[in-house]
Amino acid sequence: MPRPLILVTNDDGITSSGILNLVTVMKELGDVIVVAPNSPQSGMGHAITVGDTLRLKESTIFEGVKAYECSGTPADCVKMARHYILKDKRQPDVVVSGVNHGSNTSISVLYSGTMSAAIEGAIEGTPAIGFSLADYGNEADFSHTLEYIKKITSQVMEKGLPKGVALNVNFPHKKKGPIKGIKICRQANAKWVEDFDERKDPNGATYFWMTGKFVNFDKGEDNDEWAIANNYVSVVPCQFDLTAHHAIPVLNDEWNIL
Amino acid sequence: MPRPLILVTNDDGITSSGILNLVTVMKELGDVIVVAPNSPQSGMGHAITVGDTLRLKESTIFEGVKAYECSGTPADCVKMARHYILKDKRQPDVVVSGVNHGSNTSISVLYSGTMSAAIEGAIEGTPAIGFSLADYGNEADFSHTLEYIKKITSQVMEKGLPKGVALNVNFPHKKKGPIKGIKICRQANAKWVEDFDERKDPNGATYFWMTGKFVNFDKGEDNDEWAIANNYVSVVPCQFDLTAHHAIPVLNDEWNIL
Repeated sequence: MPRPLILVTNDDGITSSGILNLVTVMKELGDVIVVAPNSPQSGMGHAITVGDTLRLKESTIFEGVKAYECSGTPADCVKMARHYILKDKRQPDVVVSGVNHGSNTSISVLYSGTMSAAIEGAIEGTPAIGFSLADYGNEADFSHTLEYIKKITSQVMEKGLPKGVALNVNFPHKKKGPIKGIKICRQANAKWVEDFDERKDPNGATYFWMTGKFVNFDKGEDNDEWAIANNYVSVVPCQFDLTAHHAIPVLNDEWNIL
Repeated sequence: MPRPLILVTNDDGITSSGILNLVTVMKELGDVIVVAPNSPQSGMGHAITVGDTLRLKESTIFEGVKAYECSGTPADCVKMARHYILKDKRQPDVVVSGVNHGSNTSISVLYSGTMSAAIEGAIEGTPAIGFSLADYGNEADFSHTLEYIKKITSQVMEKGLPKGVALNVNFPHKKKGPIKGIKICRQANAKWVEDFDERKDPNGATYFWMTGKFVNFDKGEDNDEWAIANNYVSVVPCQFDLTAHHAIPVLNDEWNIL
């Protein structure tokens, strides 16, 4: 059996320490190829580059690992890896994305480039995992996550994942102390309430920074917010079928224009 | 009872003919406010502007309608409308997005700025609808869609929508002849297979255009691809809870690292 082929990407860009940590773990588990953005792509959601050109450049940033930096979004990186760099070649056995600087629990999964790259892997039928750490800092300490990244990725390699599913894995901040274990969770019911910080540029014109605070409405203990607040690693299986299947009979029953 | 307040946005930009058609219909149904991107934002998915500034400018493009053009993504537009322009004011009763030039059926819902704006409305608890026409052309003919946009929006205003649900509405191309009716659907199982058109710039450096072909794996007749191929208006209720709930017991059962 050949070693597994692992595609690594992220949304903080190829020079972030999060992806370096992820590559280091993946080198123990298989053959690694990296295709990651050449600049930070946080908040890019499932954006793809449709009205603009893309650039791709080989990178020697990771010792002994074939790596490319791409001008596009995280989803573009996965598409370029599969349909250009690895076209007509052996395809990845697993796609991993991250480790993101900042958590992607709850509603943040929608805005997350990290998770969009993983979901792009799932669309292609490849087991895929997005990893995120609840620490935004450039100096974030990933040391407590490495053992869990290895365990979870090995488990996914061994058992596979249900069709159409990618995992959203979040780690508590290092300063919270020893991790208690891994919890399979649902996405918490929470949202961001934005604020717009209004300023004047040097020409006197108005511009804005979007800020916001996170509001958690979820009183359950089976969700990802509860898990990382209580020092567990949260694992949410995510799907790309957005259909609210429960709403189909409701609309069929209630609407009088059908 | 005051007239409903309707927030209109899109992803093709405030000058597109799709949004003009949508605004024209909405003026018949309520008081309209437009906050739309100042440039095309196709393929932006659920991107938001987190590492950059935002600009906002009043626009007189729609006669008798308060309108703003925003430098951000469709999701940013909805956030700025609610949390800046309408902050501490009456909030919209409904959010409509589109009409997109090009369909957003099946997997395209993930990449669609049109639908992300609608889902952003649903996150805020407001009934929301994204409208798209299966015609990419600048000269797209929206005339056959107007009656259905009015019917569907009126129905949503009257009956509301299940919590956490936004509608993804797609119209067949005008040239397919008279529309047969409206079908409540699920998202079809299909994907894009990308290709990368490799070129040289005037300096001899390589760049790429992403192209692709749409591959439909779905043999059912209850999905959005089938509906618009058969000249129905497709209505897919979409949710922002991405949890694959069916996969939670599978992972809890199979994994030996919990």
